Amino acid sequence: MCRGYVVGMAFCLLAGMANAQNLEYVDARNLLMVGKACSSGEYYHRLDTTFFKELPPKVKYLSTHSCGLAIGFLTNSSIISAKWEVKPDKPSPNLSAMAHRGLDLYIKRHGVWEFAGVGIPDMHANMNEGTIVQDMDSTLKECLLYLPLFSEVKSLEIGIEKGAFVSALPYPFEKKVLIYGSSIVHGAEASRSGTTYVAKLSRRTGLDFVNLGFSGNARMENSMADCLANIEADAYILDCVPNATADQIAERTDYLVRTIREKHPEAPIIVVQSIVMDIGNFNLKVKNDLLVKDRTIRKEVEKLWQAGVQNLHFIEGRDLIGNDHEGTGDGIHPNDLGFERMAETMKPKLMEILDNE
Amino acid sequence: MCRGYVVGMAFCLLAGMANAQNLEYVDARNLLMVGKACSSGEYYHRLDTTFFKELPPKVKYLSTHSCGLAIGFLTNSSIISAKWEVKPDKPSPNLSAMAHRGLDLYIKRHGVWEFAGVGIPDMHANMNEGTIVQDMDSTLKECLLYLPLFSEVKSLEIGIEKGAFVSALPYPFEKKVLIYGSSIVHGAEASRSGTTYVAKLSRRTGLDFVNLGFSGNARMENSMADCLANIEADAYILDCVPNATADQIAERTDYLVRTIREKHPEAPIIVVQSIVMDIGNFNLKVKNDLLVKDRTIRKEVEKLWQAGVQNLHFIEGRDLIGNDHEGTGDGIHPNDLGFERMAETMKPKLMEILDNE
Repeated sequence: MCRGYVVGMAFCLLAGMANAQNLEYVDARNLLMVGKACSSGEYYHRLDTTFFKELPPKVKYLSTHSCGLAIGFLTNSSIISAKWEVKPDKPSPNLSAMAHRGLDLYIKRHGVWEFAGVGIPDMHANMNEGTIVQDMDSTLKECLLYLPLFSEVKSLEIGIEKGAFVSALPYPFEKKVLIYGSSIVHGAEASRSGTTYVAKLSRRTGLDFVNLGFSGNARMENSMADCLANIEADAYILDCVPNATADQIAERTDYLVRTIREKHPEAPIIVVQSIVMDIGNFNLKVKNDLLVKDRTIRKEVEKLWQAGVQNLHFIEGRDLIGNDHEGTGDGIHPNDLGFERMAETMKPKLMEILDNE
Repeated sequence: MCRGYVVGMAFCLLAGMANAQNLEYVDARNLLMVGKACSSGEYYHRLDTTFFKELPPKVKYLSTHSCGLAIGFLTNSSIISAKWEVKPDKPSPNLSAMAHRGLDLYIKRHGVWEFAGVGIPDMHANMNEGTIVQDMDSTLKECLLYLPLFSEVKSLEIGIEKGAFVSALPYPFEKKVLIYGSSIVHGAEASRSGTTYVAKLSRRTGLDFVNLGFSGNARMENSMADCLANIEADAYILDCVPNATADQIAERTDYLVRTIREKHPEAPIIVVQSIVMDIGNFNLKVKNDLLVKDRTIRKEVEKLWQAGVQNLHFIEGRDLIGNDHEGTGDGIHPNDLGFERMAETMKPKLMEILDNE
């Protein structure tokens, strides 16, 4: 139904003398949008829900959050600033304002995406303005500006020195791999929007991992299965154990996998167990509930294997955030240590599957 | 001037049948206070500033924050809850409410302190109440409940099942090692109060690392040198490059080190360079400023060595949070990945020095 990336009109200005106090602003819609599941719909939304009317209302709402989206541009400006307006989700005790509604800039150096600076959000207003990085050399740089995790972006302008060069980046990632999941995919407890495991995977593999995380959701509803199947992608990762009940997993996994498989006969489908939630480290009930859910999804995948479903893969959850219980912020959501471990543990497993495609 | 730990009166109740809905509350002042620099003064403050009248007013204020403090207790209750009142610092874009004013519980298992649960703060009130962990087995457990990083605690009661046993923990750590520093020591951008590098070091070494981090401060004032020298400790770590200027470092290091050495002729004094701040990854001015400050502190330490100051140690900053630029939340403060790397990098260097004492 929807395929391809939103590539804004190339927007170029001639290079000139730098003056950090003298900025001009470029509407981000004239640059490159990275990480969208569908090219249609509201520019800063992750899904065009006019195509997916049956989705749960909360999932539709959460698809307006810009987690996983980034603006790609080339510039030789020695300063990068931004003005951005957000409609934030309600505050959460787990999230810094920076992750909730701030910006996060990466720049490529010697082939590696490296952190460059953050856009610090206003603590009292939805309209934000600030310098992200300054006093850089004036070589041409590939930039990727991650948008807020838990807010809808209403507008974004990127500020550069007057006369500096800026244009849309050529699309920086290959293929398209959807990751469907819960608040963990959404990025709850990342310190900033570029440190989710999804964002790290894209930067480190060069593949386009698309964030379809829905905090407090991802319960594998049939309408979500239909939605995922209708998005063209090269692979589908299902990281949706955390919020689903064992019964829901038993009832819904078959439909979810088969619906995607029917529309995409060749695409790898990769089912991921839950991370080991540290609230179950001493809480025996939580620990047992999670074990039951993880066993249930394993059984469902085994049944599908036995039924002959091909190119269906399974990643265990037990080592994803390490085993020292230091990898979550609240016992549920990975902190930046947990996300780093998830990315590094999943990367070779995923690349073994995706490299063969 | 002040030495020793605040050990509350042992408070014991006979073990009985558990009923998670039926709690009784123990004032935390009847249990064990861990991590205080001085035993006198307000119970939940880090310093008794009536002894240190010359300290900068902002440092005095920040010493009311409970970062690094923890309540130690033994209990066989299957549920642990808390009611706590805070006077929070102003919100920061870098901090989650959990780190700002929440609680963080660790329990010892097979000799290792492991995460057990968090006390989630109210988003709109200073009075908080919540379950930290429940559905545990009823074996006797050693518990360490970390207090908020950026708030003053006004009161704290710990809830256990009616009839369960609770008492003050014997002091869990040996020796006393002061760490004087900036917001990085204070814990800015830890996801919760137990993930600062200071807290990790205590849990992993069994030594009592005492948090004297002062966000936005630690400028090595003479009054602070006098304060540190007047606190009895077995070693002194000076992690105070980040907020001091190069001139301040050049002017103040000698007085700081010599003042401590004069009062404590045998105690190791360990000077730490700044972490490599990732806002200087592309910002050439920030990068250079930090290099100058780090060179300055190294020169000052070398001068002191040449002058014959003994048992003065130096830890380089360049590898403390890794080299991939993923270890900070905002380019300045370590996120949980950075804190984990700091703790693991510093631990062997510190133990080599402290084991010989």
